[in-house]
Amino acid sequence: MIIIMSPSATEEEIHLVQHEIEATGFRPFMNPGVERKVIAVLGELDVRKADLAEQFQAMAGVARVELISDLWKLASRSYYPAGSVVRVGDVSIGSDEVVIVAGPCSVESEAQMIQLAHQIKAAGGKMLRGGAFKPRTSPYSFQGLGEEGLRILAKAREETGLPVVTEVMDTHEVDLVCKYADVLQIGTRNMQNYALLKKVGTTGHPVLLKRGLGSKIRDLLMSAEYIISEGNTKVILCERGITTFEDSTRNTTDINAIPVLKNWTHLPVMLDPSHATGNWQYVAAIAGAAVAAGSDGVMIEVHNDPARAWSDGPQSLTPERFQNLVVRLRAIAEAVDRAV
Amino acid sequence: MIIIMSPSATEEEIHLVQHEIEATGFRPFMNPGVERKVIAVLGELDVRKADLAEQFQAMAGVARVELISDLWKLASRSYYPAGSVVRVGDVSIGSDEVVIVAGPCSVESEAQMIQLAHQIKAAGGKMLRGGAFKPRTSPYSFQGLGEEGLRILAKAREETGLPVVTEVMDTHEVDLVCKYADVLQIGTRNMQNYALLKKVGTTGHPVLLKRGLGSKIRDLLMSAEYIISEGNTKVILCERGITTFEDSTRNTTDINAIPVLKNWTHLPVMLDPSHATGNWQYVAAIAGAAVAAGSDGVMIEVHNDPARAWSDGPQSLTPERFQNLVVRLRAIAEAVDRAV
Amino acid sequence: MIIIMSPSATEEEIHLVQHEIEATGFRPFMNPGVERKVIAVLGELDVRKADLAEQFQAMAGVARVELISDLWKLASRSYYPAGSVVRVGDVSIGSDEVVIVAGPCSVESEAQMIQLAHQIKAAGGKMLRGGAFKPRTSPYSFQGLGEEGLRILAKAREETGLPVVTEVMDTHEVDLVCKYADVLQIGTRNMQNYALLKKVGTTGHPVLLKRGLGSKIRDLLMSAEYIISEGNTKVILCERGITTFEDSTRNTTDINAIPVLKNWTHLPVMLDPSHATGNWQYVAAIAGAAVAAGSDGVMIEVHNDPARAWSDGPQSLTPERFQNLVVRLRAIAEAVDRAV
Amino acid sequence: MIIIMSPSATEEEIHLVQHEIEATGFRPFMNPGVERKVIAVLGELDVRKADLAEQFQAMAGVARVELISDLWKLASRSYYPAGSVVRVGDVSIGSDEVVIVAGPCSVESEAQMIQLAHQIKAAGGKMLRGGAFKPRTSPYSFQGLGEEGLRILAKAREETGLPVVTEVMDTHEVDLVCKYADVLQIGTRNMQNYALLKKVGTTGHPVLLKRGLGSKIRDLLMSAEYIISEGNTKVILCERGITTFEDSTRNTTDINAIPVLKNWTHLPVMLDPSHATGNWQYVAAIAGAAVAAGSDGVMIEVHNDPARAWSDGPQSLTPERFQNLVVRLRAIAEAVDRAV
Repeated sequence: MIIIMSPSATEEEIHLVQHEIEATGFRPFMNPGVERKVIAVLGELDVRKADLAEQFQAMAGVARVELISDLWKLASRSYYPAGSVVRVGDVSIGSDEVVIVAGPCSVESEAQMIQLAHQIKAAGGKMLRGGAFKPRTSPYSFQGLGEEGLRILAKAREETGLPVVTEVMDTHEVDLVCKYADVLQIGTRNMQNYALLKKVGTTGHPVLLKRGLGSKIRDLLMSAEYIISEGNTKVILCERGITTFEDSTRNTTDINAIPVLKNWTHLPVMLDPSHATGNWQYVAAIAGAAVAAGSDGVMIEVHNDPARAWSDGPQSLTPERFQNLVVRLRAIAEAVDRAV
Repeated sequence: MIIIMSPSATEEEIHLVQHEIEATGFRPFMNPGVERKVIAVLGELDVRKADLAEQFQAMAGVARVELISDLWKLASRSYYPAGSVVRVGDVSIGSDEVVIVAGPCSVESEAQMIQLAHQIKAAGGKMLRGGAFKPRTSPYSFQGLGEEGLRILAKAREETGLPVVTEVMDTHEVDLVCKYADVLQIGTRNMQNYALLKKVGTTGHPVLLKRGLGSKIRDLLMSAEYIISEGNTKVILCERGITTFEDSTRNTTDINAIPVLKNWTHLPVMLDPSHATGNWQYVAAIAGAAVAAGSDGVMIEVHNDPARAWSDGPQSLTPERFQNLVVRLRAIAEAVDRAV
Repeated sequence: MIIIMSPSATEEEIHLVQHEIEATGFRPFMNPGVERKVIAVLGELDVRKADLAEQFQAMAGVARVELISDLWKLASRSYYPAGSVVRVGDVSIGSDEVVIVAGPCSVESEAQMIQLAHQIKAAGGKMLRGGAFKPRTSPYSFQGLGEEGLRILAKAREETGLPVVTEVMDTHEVDLVCKYADVLQIGTRNMQNYALLKKVGTTGHPVLLKRGLGSKIRDLLMSAEYIISEGNTKVILCERGITTFEDSTRNTTDINAIPVLKNWTHLPVMLDPSHATGNWQYVAAIAGAAVAAGSDGVMIEVHNDPARAWSDGPQSLTPERFQNLVVRLRAIAEAVDRAV
Repeated sequence: MIIIMSPSATEEEIHLVQHEIEATGFRPFMNPGVERKVIAVLGELDVRKADLAEQFQAMAGVARVELISDLWKLASRSYYPAGSVVRVGDVSIGSDEVVIVAGPCSVESEAQMIQLAHQIKAAGGKMLRGGAFKPRTSPYSFQGLGEEGLRILAKAREETGLPVVTEVMDTHEVDLVCKYADVLQIGTRNMQNYALLKKVGTTGHPVLLKRGLGSKIRDLLMSAEYIISEGNTKVILCERGITTFEDSTRNTTDINAIPVLKNWTHLPVMLDPSHATGNWQYVAAIAGAAVAAGSDGVMIEVHNDPARAWSDGPQSLTPERFQNLVVRLRAIAEAVDRAV
């Protein structure tokens, strides 16, 4: 519930409303310094909501009561207007720097991962990605190397100094993945796996939250709210394409999501053009678009031999193409007063 | 991988291909009695797939090799052309009977649930639904009564004899929910929570698998395949609306999914018009449409006082309206040679 | 603009607002007998709207002013709560009868059309459909027989007594099509061809308006409003599938549109399961669903030899299958207290 | 129909197939110099297609016959691999220059238009846009000034030298609009108004073809094919947002469409961020994304007083903001080796 006070409401009237919220067992939440006087009412709002709305509506100075229970609060831009920066080792996501994360879809072998990690670092990548636990549409597809994959990622970090982001798919695996990874990725299929969101919210680890294929931007923010409300504010959002009627690409990149998210939330925002297009030929164009649109980073699938990749080969760049991409992104970043 | 044999392929040629599949470490799978000779190759197909395709392509009698790794096999209609029936107590889902499942969105109290259960049974409902663990978009919304909710559902079953279906949201809770529930529901947000699918696949419990909001029919079948491939064949599919540009209803009922699923899979299919419309005024029309389209059941939200429901009030029927709905559905079921 | 009066507004206050609307050059529009006092302001609202809103907001008895210029008025259910019936010859669309319209996608020859018309009539069809001017995605596809096709349709009507519905694609052709057809069809691609809508709005001919593939229900109603506001109230709406991410069918039948439209507008509503599925195997299921959901009619593609149809063969029923369909629809119609 | 020849097919075999195509009344079409030998069969392919496919399949050297009637040919990249440039006065669309088109949604008055035209030119705009005939969802909305609007646009061109693009909505108006405009715009609602496409295809005027809200990229190309096949090759394509489930923006910018179109067609491509977002706050980000993704131009709504615009005010930039945008786009264009 959101209570909108009259522009002419007095401090006294506002305090009385806040007091009444507490008296009914909820938590009032009001951003200091915001021009429009809006009081968020936090708690299990579904119960007795109609009655409460009437009750508050009747109070002096109240202009309007909205029964909007689906609203992010702690993820809201108004909560932290300056924008938050998530630090992972030496990397600052949400700063002036545009962060390039790169790596293979799946970790396949130590030799491959170490080689790729060196190539990515040399080209200008700042963080490594690679799947150890893989969410595959088919149960018969390769499901990832599991803990062995995590071990390999940690080895690649040791050798290159690049922090590592990798997916965690189930509450059971969170502790294990935390032992090896710098950033926990919540994949598109688990964006609304609330048990998992709550669990990663109790760790101190940064979380990369990918948008669900069929999820609205507001739902992405509500999922971020699940993590933050458990005490973990280090959340990075990632647009990775949505499902639409257009079938010439694997998904439709919702490039609008970049400025919308920068407007609505203080959290840093990335874009994954590899999944958003599903076709390596389009990755450079869309990665550039992301940087021009204000993304705080991009996440690129790179593979030494895409034709033989165990997963997502068609959307993976070779290390050479990745190198060219970084050059291109650096130029675009500078054009919008940022750096790669 | 799918190997399509020539119409003129001999038994000998087919056997050689099957043998070669095993020799390369995969499992051949071929439905007996199917006219078109197609051999499914089960296993982790992503690895070395290109080479294998060439190898099989070169064998005598092979017409064509398709690298389709995302294909359901055990859920396929061709695997069990007669159609499977899932039995829950006295209820047979997938039979000539159209099964009506009803209950509140959330279990709120024992008194409410028992009263509703009696009303639902008297009206003609055959199974109870009710959420104890609730996946809510907002962390501040009511999250369900948890085990207490499960206990209440079991009590309602004891009093009325109606089997109970309820959602399980995390691998941690599967054993607990199995203790109380007759059917485990996998909700729309967890349709691709593969850890959870595998876990419920290891139980002997029937599973009601709801389609993801942004998931294609083929993805729903792949998720069913996850459950079946773990050994649990008692899977009921449920269409509950998809996300589209149309915003006059909460979701868009994909009524086409009913005949498509009946064509593609042997699994029974239900429809949930309450979530698919989000508006009680449209529930009767869409429930009737589901029965006319060949659905094996419908799942209806019923609440004794929708205006005060703790969740999903706007889409819940009163017990009186539910009673009228059953009368209507019975007439439509008879018109298509089935019974309610 | 919509002006919502206070529940306590006096008759005098309402009259003053209406008078002021006229004084500013607009037309007030208020449905008699509606409980909620809402005054629609008709006219070119875009100009000076912000000022006007403030002006009306300041008047006594006004609760709220909404700057909703995109709102149907004459198509609204509240304008004619009983529901309108469009009569075409002996056929009444919007009555207790569920009207079955059938015919080939394209008129191909006189012999074919006459034979089909007799078969359709014998089976229980009440109106003929057939394309003479065909909107084809490709300029290289068959574009229809043109006036010769119209002449053949008129001949088929003469022989069977069945009225004829056929598409008109351009303002230039409206007069010509009116000479032959009983009902003018506006196809999905022209739903927002406003010049064409206005032109058919000036004829006395009934219009069958098909929903655009990517158009919301509210846009369909606005297009109907274009026709009605030119003086032609004989508008029949037709749901024919929308474009979504689901690709197992040609389009996604928005079955929800049936009860939503019956709720929002007084105009009769039909459904075209042939285009909405794109697959004859699914036509019977979806046609039945439409009738169960409250559709006032269905529109079915029938062809004597679907495999050789010049267009839309895969979604056409044979006359035999059509005959079976009518039997099925009759049973479902009776189950919902209507007749075929 | 597409006939794919074997890699080993001889010249003789290819000639025989081409000859046979002509003998059956169709036109063979084969791009010289393309590695894969593919013969397009142009004509009314729907008729007798199954028979023909078998006939060609049986010929020597033919690898495969595909019954793809919905395929663009003259718009294909392979038809003109270098990419075509559409010249309008001094402006070259499809060249190294990124062309900025700007102007108000609707032409409102001569004074406004002239002033805006000067401001746009001074800021770096190269072409003027402005609606004289307006396709409005509601019949009660402002429908444009008509010929008076065209006259004003021509006056603005006279004063500034900037060419003018404006929408034409009906075949009746094409001659009139040609008298005043440099580029004919086909709006999103008329993308599949085939009578209109054919008509503008017979003029010598460049055409700006906007993608339909619910239209796939392949449908956009088929609509371009309608224009080109009438003899007019001066077609510019324009992405302007598609309809999806995301509702935080008016439409969803399909940024992927830019590289897909550059890959599939030789025609120049623009993007309209004003309609694609519906919110001026997001226009700069998405315009920049378009340039970074390889768009040949952008189309921006500019209004001297957006709050009082007669249409589309919320998505219009002020002249000052437009000036800043051009500076930003120039930097991004240079970063990708182009110029503004």
